[in-house]
Amino acid sequence: MSTSDVTDNTGTGAPVPPQTPQVGPADAARYESRFSALASGTTSSVMRDLMAITEKADIISLAGGLPDTETFPREIYDEIAGEIGTDFLASSLQYGPTDGMGELREQIAKVMADEGARARVDDIMITTGGQQAIDLSIRTFVDRGDTVMAEGPTYPGAAPCFTAYGADVTHVPMDDDGMREDLFEEAYERLVAEGRPPKILYTIPNFQNPAGVTMSLERREKLVEFAHEVGLLIIEDNPYGQIRFEGEPLPTLYELDDGAGWVVYLGTFSKILAPGMRVGWAVAPPQVLRKMNLGKQAADLCSSTYNQRFVTEYLKRYDYREHVARVCELYRGRRDAMLEALEARFPAEATWTRPRGGLFVWATLPDFIDTTALQAKALERQVAFVPGEGAFLDGRGKNSMRLNFSSVPESVITEGVGRLGEVIGDVIDLHDALNPGGR
Amino acid sequence: MSTSDVTDNTGTGAPVPPQTPQVGPADAARYESRFSALASGTTSSVMRDLMAITEKADIISLAGGLPDTETFPREIYDEIAGEIGTDFLASSLQYGPTDGMGELREQIAKVMADEGARARVDDIMITTGGQQAIDLSIRTFVDRGDTVMAEGPTYPGAAPCFTAYGADVTHVPMDDDGMREDLFEEAYERLVAEGRPPKILYTIPNFQNPAGVTMSLERREKLVEFAHEVGLLIIEDNPYGQIRFEGEPLPTLYELDDGAGWVVYLGTFSKILAPGMRVGWAVAPPQVLRKMNLGKQAADLCSSTYNQRFVTEYLKRYDYREHVARVCELYRGRRDAMLEALEARFPAEATWTRPRGGLFVWATLPDFIDTTALQAKALERQVAFVPGEGAFLDGRGKNSMRLNFSSVPESVITEGVGRLGEVIGDVIDLHDALNPGGR
Repeated sequence: MSTSDVTDNTGTGAPVPPQTPQVGPADAARYESRFSALASGTTSSVMRDLMAITEKADIISLAGGLPDTETFPREIYDEIAGEIGTDFLASSLQYGPTDGMGELREQIAKVMADEGARARVDDIMITTGGQQAIDLSIRTFVDRGDTVMAEGPTYPGAAPCFTAYGADVTHVPMDDDGMREDLFEEAYERLVAEGRPPKILYTIPNFQNPAGVTMSLERREKLVEFAHEVGLLIIEDNPYGQIRFEGEPLPTLYELDDGAGWVVYLGTFSKILAPGMRVGWAVAPPQVLRKMNLGKQAADLCSSTYNQRFVTEYLKRYDYREHVARVCELYRGRRDAMLEALEARFPAEATWTRPRGGLFVWATLPDFIDTTALQAKALERQVAFVPGEGAFLDGRGKNSMRLNFSSVPESVITEGVGRLGEVIGDVIDLHDALNPGGR
Repeated sequence: MSTSDVTDNTGTGAPVPPQTPQVGPADAARYESRFSALASGTTSSVMRDLMAITEKADIISLAGGLPDTETFPREIYDEIAGEIGTDFLASSLQYGPTDGMGELREQIAKVMADEGARARVDDIMITTGGQQAIDLSIRTFVDRGDTVMAEGPTYPGAAPCFTAYGADVTHVPMDDDGMREDLFEEAYERLVAEGRPPKILYTIPNFQNPAGVTMSLERREKLVEFAHEVGLLIIEDNPYGQIRFEGEPLPTLYELDDGAGWVVYLGTFSKILAPGMRVGWAVAPPQVLRKMNLGKQAADLCSSTYNQRFVTEYLKRYDYREHVARVCELYRGRRDAMLEALEARFPAEATWTRPRGGLFVWATLPDFIDTTALQAKALERQVAFVPGEGAFLDGRGKNSMRLNFSSVPESVITEGVGRLGEVIGDVIDLHDALNPGGR
């Protein structure tokens, strides 16, 4: 093109002439050969890909991890947005420090105190959602080939971080009391004996995503004691701690560590306020925090100052726990609806967890069922879930699924679980017909 | 601690008992031995560290790259914030797709058309500021030890990305017409002959940060022609293209590539709207975009839907070019004030660039001056700049400095440059006194 083409084409309202894509399939190899090991190794987050599917069609999605944002009061939004305009407009549109606004970090220390975790403001950094806190903490410790321990299943959104940085993940089984601490110790010792001592343990003790189970106090105490004994760094991810429907809160691993510096704590406002703000945080010993901060300088310079101000003003003006109480009330009803529907509509061969909080139920089907294949049939019936495979990095989880109960009303949950039950029932019937001698 | 401590400590308003840090200097080694190569290699962004310093004290900062956000009209903010509350509240607080809102990507295609760059909406992804676009594009291609080419000096904020992923950076000199294309070709051929062909070229053709110079049309055409010939991927970073004070716009490398797929284009709203929103974008061939998207899934799931909605509504309702025109008018006066002050107050031994747009002037001092050391003396006089060393990855740049003219009023620029001139003059006088035989 000539220069005059450029200067002639400056109208914002002007239609954009479609550029002919000239990169055909034959050229694809040119990129493949140039991708980094990091990019080549990064797997897709199964949840994220599903989100793209479920957004487009009229599908009942039990796949997301979406909190309900319909409940956020308009008048509160108006007050905060107005306050920003009046007192903080220029600063909220400006860059901010990489580790985040001091005022917000002070508020976060109070939010953590509500879970009994006493953090120093100086040990807190703001991140762009909880996901960035996961990414920064993993990249700070994990080199290609390093061993990492995590629950099995683990958070599907952490999977791309593990694969990107080349972690070799050993999963530890869970039961209704969370990660089996005894099996964790066994696996740890075995890995040490094999000459590949784990770099970190990544764990979600409260209402684990995707399993929905919660680590008991006894196991938490044993785990931290063991970490102190052997010198193991724990990354404690706690997005759901306050989304509790029943029972007493348990101390975080961070609090049990009692300042010994073996726990990096990750938090987020996505579940207790709103994910669209992308405000999360990390708490770590100064040396670790410094490295995570350098990582954040490279990753995005700083998190949105506008969003940090929004969350700060919200926390200063309102008791967020009232909103959390409303949300818990809503989710409790939806969890109940899901558990009832599972009881009524899922085949007898299936089992599932009974979460006391959080957003997810984990269901296990007969082992001849591959839930990734099942997904296609479910989508035909306009219902989506997260296949379990995405929550393991060792190929397991094929006969399991994550079901979300926070995003849709109870009646829709009932309908969605019903449809899924039928799809699964059909597959079992077909299998039985083809295997008349039994399973 | 006991469980009862936790349940006793649940009041939001309750003071947070300070946790005694138990990690002494003796324990620091425990973390050092556990850090990943990526974390150990990541250097600090000199600009970011300076921001922390200059924020705290009453300092004239010529160090930042801060756009002026005071000029953003309150009534426009109110209208957009109100509109979000009325029509988009729940969706703006919710998660969004990883590649960004479709409506915003359509608006971005129009913004790019204003610079004569015809991009397909499907080839655009939203990023958390321009910095994330840089990070994702570099991590998509660069493995430890890979050769990367960049201008010398290069953007100091890209330096941590290069060091994190282990890039071996070869710098190409610039003059008033931007990167010396002839020297670029020479360096490229030499690197190929040495068996380390460059993976990518990272370049800022318009009003380069930090040098302030702009690549001529002739060099752009030659560069793209050469890239096509040898098969070189170019990452074109264009944050300042529309911040032009004089002269005609030049075509982007992306447009000159004409759909051949050798240019990845990076843009941002930080300079034409507001950095606090953290909304940037990348345009790339589908295969590359897919990898960058997987990287973003791991990095932060999605950019703030609230901020994406804010920018979308702004672009739909207002002609952003009017705001850009106001900003350019303001910055032009500030650039003039800086050039005048440099002429009047800097020693005869210094030289500097004369930018026709953007935010920065690059000054070069006698080679016996180390600007990193000079910074301490400047801070004593309450004035800050970015030492040139941070813009090179090979130790060069020690006698140079980046001066920003967008953040502070003209009178403050004059005062700041004056103080700097005195500090530099003192160092030159001292040097001359110690070296009576001449330099």
